[in-house]
Amino acid sequence: MARVYNFGAGPATMPVPVLEQIQSELLDYRGEGLSILEMSHRTPAFSAVIEHAEDTLRRLMGIPDSYAVLFLQGGATLQFAGIPMNLMRTGRAGYIRSGLFSTLAWQEAGKYGEAPVVASSEPTGYDRVPDTGSYTVPQDLDYLYICENNTIYGTKFWELPDTGAVPLVSDMSSCFLSEPVDVARYGLIYAGVQKNAGPAGLSCVIVRRDLIAPGPAKPYCPSYLDYRVQDEKDSMMNTPNTFAIYACSLVFDWIEAQGGLAAMRERNRAKADLMYAALDKSRLFRPHAQKASRSMMNATFRTGSDALDQEFLAGAEARGMIGIKGHRSTRGMRASMYNALPIEAVQALTAYMEEFEAAHPAEAEAAALAAGEKSARSC
Amino acid sequence: MARVYNFGAGPATMPVPVLEQIQSELLDYRGEGLSILEMSHRTPAFSAVIEHAEDTLRRLMGIPDSYAVLFLQGGATLQFAGIPMNLMRTGRAGYIRSGLFSTLAWQEAGKYGEAPVVASSEPTGYDRVPDTGSYTVPQDLDYLYICENNTIYGTKFWELPDTGAVPLVSDMSSCFLSEPVDVARYGLIYAGVQKNAGPAGLSCVIVRRDLIAPGPAKPYCPSYLDYRVQDEKDSMMNTPNTFAIYACSLVFDWIEAQGGLAAMRERNRAKADLMYAALDKSRLFRPHAQKASRSMMNATFRTGSDALDQEFLAGAEARGMIGIKGHRSTRGMRASMYNALPIEAVQALTAYMEEFEAAHPAEAEAAALAAGEKSARSC
Repeated sequence: MARVYNFGAGPATMPVPVLEQIQSELLDYRGEGLSILEMSHRTPAFSAVIEHAEDTLRRLMGIPDSYAVLFLQGGATLQFAGIPMNLMRTGRAGYIRSGLFSTLAWQEAGKYGEAPVVASSEPTGYDRVPDTGSYTVPQDLDYLYICENNTIYGTKFWELPDTGAVPLVSDMSSCFLSEPVDVARYGLIYAGVQKNAGPAGLSCVIVRRDLIAPGPAKPYCPSYLDYRVQDEKDSMMNTPNTFAIYACSLVFDWIEAQGGLAAMRERNRAKADLMYAALDKSRLFRPHAQKASRSMMNATFRTGSDALDQEFLAGAEARGMIGIKGHRSTRGMRASMYNALPIEAVQALTAYMEEFEAAHPAEAEAAALAAGEKSARSC
Repeated sequence: MARVYNFGAGPATMPVPVLEQIQSELLDYRGEGLSILEMSHRTPAFSAVIEHAEDTLRRLMGIPDSYAVLFLQGGATLQFAGIPMNLMRTGRAGYIRSGLFSTLAWQEAGKYGEAPVVASSEPTGYDRVPDTGSYTVPQDLDYLYICENNTIYGTKFWELPDTGAVPLVSDMSSCFLSEPVDVARYGLIYAGVQKNAGPAGLSCVIVRRDLIAPGPAKPYCPSYLDYRVQDEKDSMMNTPNTFAIYACSLVFDWIEAQGGLAAMRERNRAKADLMYAALDKSRLFRPHAQKASRSMMNATFRTGSDALDQEFLAGAEARGMIGIKGHRSTRGMRASMYNALPIEAVQALTAYMEEFEAAHPAEAEAAALAAGEKSARSC
């Protein structure tokens, strides 16, 4: 089959040249006489892989030496526990609830101490991130936690909370490497790599070393999650996910060859602009996220009718566009537009949206009326 | 370069037909129009992969329905904590120390409760596993923990401890799928897959469901490590290591096509017999493990001289035999002979050992004398 346009939220589309390279050297890794899948993590050849991955990531993101870079397993979910177990020293950390994953992280943190909700956009159905001016960050917190890009709802923090002296902890899973970032503003950044950086099974944790220097906050923290030890052992206190580290290092190289994170932003901005322009002019499709909070990675929208959504999704799949079905908690549609998604995919999707709308004039009329009424009622 | 013989202890050699299949479908997974690396874990295609992996593993090992099968990340090391956090209900579990990994697991368990050492072969340098007749298992334990095959020292439990009503927990990482196993004798079996079953980054946990039904023993157990929830969610409470699950499912298929675990035992026994026969007739090379405890997977040996060991290892590498260097804690040599290692590799290694010994008659004479003296002294 021809290659599909993969709008999936993660695991997600990867750069074709990276896939081709993995394929070409899969049976014999660069003349070593064995596959990367078979290679001991204690060999010089693999040491070169993980060092290259870390060096390239540090260069791409401008990560200062005062930050550790860890490659860990267990996804973001395991770090929901790892973060409080390492950093909750006084036993009190603040959480901003801007969607499902920040809520799950907040619930998990409650196992390890007090976790006050500093702000929440739950009352408006997570259609935005809480406005920075609407809350203040208590200065007695061990950290303030945000999920910077909310994959399910298609929202993003375009302005970071003013945390004062409190370290900011950010789950960047779905905006990792999508644009330049000022690492020094954060105490800890982490991300599952399966959206912008590689296959599933690896998380990057980037953490200020002074925060982890005393060792974990909780004595029962599993050794595997002891960030200080993992830093000392270069993420190899045990066998790491060698293949994912290798695949990520190739993606990092690809990003660098494209021009780095500034080029990624330009590329991603062009796709998102195209997508949101289509949504804004549509009478049938309604975006979920408020304009000021719109994610550059995940655009969420609906027709207002589940049956019509299903028809749209089936048509997309028939046209070779997959992974557009929204999360089970929001339904509707979600188009994820990660780094490796070509702009042609978004052109194809928006063209199909126009075509679909033209084929459903009565439904578009009804949707526009309903939206007008709703907007009139809310005035 | 030609394919090497990979005697590495893990990540380790894999079946060539499996590597070839991964390579052939890497850009387009069975007509889906995308790579397995890019495929959402929530798609029907991936559901089929993980279900097939579990079904095949259940068939291979004869796993009763009363046991859960979990595919988790974080290696065996993360389960050093996961096991006590789930199972240490009264707060007391017994450990048998038979090498480094059981010792690490025992130390980790001490974070979560009392962890008495029921038996230890540390006094004899872990050259055997503790004799079953030499200890009794207290019946007030939540479980008794063993590391069934000790990779570093090359030893194996050929007789399981009589635990009475106490559940037996076994780290099978380096003997997983190497021979038939009676799952019903265990409360929990777990294994990092990167030796006999696939690439690094995945652990299989096979656990009696009644042991996990009440939920984790410790309230601070990370959700990711909650075995009951992972069972309910079919190992997909979050994004799993999709690629490793796929690769393992192919290895499981390969094992089944070879004749299952009985065929693996036959294959592995033939390799191990060849290897130990060479060691037993050698005057230069001395096996580390006592005969009754010899591992079928990892043979450990030394010449008695570090310099000579180095010379031997360099010669092996020059002949395309890699990964034979012993663990840093034991030095010397270790030949790992996992399922996928062909018997030709062991034939090549034993032929080289003979050749090396013939080229070093004086050293062989000295080694034989020293061994004789040592054995005389110990009478």
